[in-house]
Amino acid sequence: MSVPDSIDRLIEQFAKFPGIGKKTAERMSFYLLNTPNEQSIHLAEAILDMKQSILSCSVCGSITQEDPCTLCSDLKRDDNFICVVEDADDIYRLEKTNSYMGRYHVLGGVLSPLDGIGPDELNIDALLLRVKDGMEIVLATNPSIEGEATNLYLAKLLKQKGAIVTRLARGLPVGSDLEYTDDATILSAMEGRTAL
Amino acid sequence: MSVPDSIDRLIEQFAKFPGIGKKTAERMSFYLLNTPNEQSIHLAEAILDMKQSILSCSVCGSITQEDPCTLCSDLKRDDNFICVVEDADDIYRLEKTNSYMGRYHVLGGVLSPLDGIGPDELNIDALLLRVKDGMEIVLATNPSIEGEATNLYLAKLLKQKGAIVTRLARGLPVGSDLEYTDDATILSAMEGRTAL
Repeated sequence: MSVPDSIDRLIEQFAKFPGIGKKTAERMSFYLLNTPNEQSIHLAEAILDMKQSILSCSVCGSITQEDPCTLCSDLKRDDNFICVVEDADDIYRLEKTNSYMGRYHVLGGVLSPLDGIGPDELNIDALLLRVKDGMEIVLATNPSIEGEATNLYLAKLLKQKGAIVTRLARGLPVGSDLEYTDDATILSAMEGRTAL
Repeated sequence: MSVPDSIDRLIEQFAKFPGIGKKTAERMSFYLLNTPNEQSIHLAEAILDMKQSILSCSVCGSITQEDPCTLCSDLKRDDNFICVVEDADDIYRLEKTNSYMGRYHVLGGVLSPLDGIGPDELNIDALLLRVKDGMEIVLATNPSIEGEATNLYLAKLLKQKGAIVTRLARGLPVGSDLEYTDDATILSAMEGRTAL
């Protein structure tokens, strides 16, 4: 015998999340089964509500509940900087560090010819329209091969517009150990060494 | 700035699951945000559908879509054995092993005076009505202090009904190592040693 169909279907849905395996999906489903109905209703409503209420900001392409988003309409932020990220959630990771006070721009991915993602699939035209002479554009894509290729492609276009183009530093993560650091990271750390 | 409210609410809902921390809840929420609407709708429907379609079996107290459940109505199972479990999901864990062909009974928890759970809060009366002279009742509560206390309480009542009462063996888990096994488990394994 197996679990009732309706539980099986829920397990299947939970198991679709990245990082959620069959076991965790089972535990989540049985947990919901044993909680009051209201909790399941709240969860289902929160899921549907989020999908309905979230728009894409017409300026930066980030996710928002009003257009333009709070970051684009914030008068205290510095218009001379635009930080380019792959996805909207990267903005929240950067904002948490309080290390940057400029604007953002969301590409919606990186160049990846094998997956059929070329420049037309990314939010690049809108970025070029925002760039003005002398602005600093901070490229904050993930440090992957596709991220680097996207950076090189963008840098060329952005420099033509007269922008200063920078990217996030590569190097040893804080708290790491050389023993457990991969070669590519050590190479980047050596190339990017800074004077003390 | 923080994430839009509707995403925050969803993160909060996901973080309520046991074993799902804030980080995982965030990752799950952003994942849903980036997937087609249908996936969110399927998930929300599966949650609500499960809560609506699942009943409690009037015989054993397990979860089921029809009453009595498939295990209680299966003519091939042995009526001389009842395995007593804490929760319905424990049945699926036991059934996976194909080690038992009797019936089941779900207590709905264990005795826990500190949490206000006494005999009246558990599905014990229905169990006593099912027990007949000479039946074997296998107690399969979790090997916790509350589980053991519940076993002792049930054993007394069940023996008065003329039942043979057993419980799952305590001992070393298969594939474990004495070096990493806690004292209570080693003690149980020693006390329950079997002849080879």
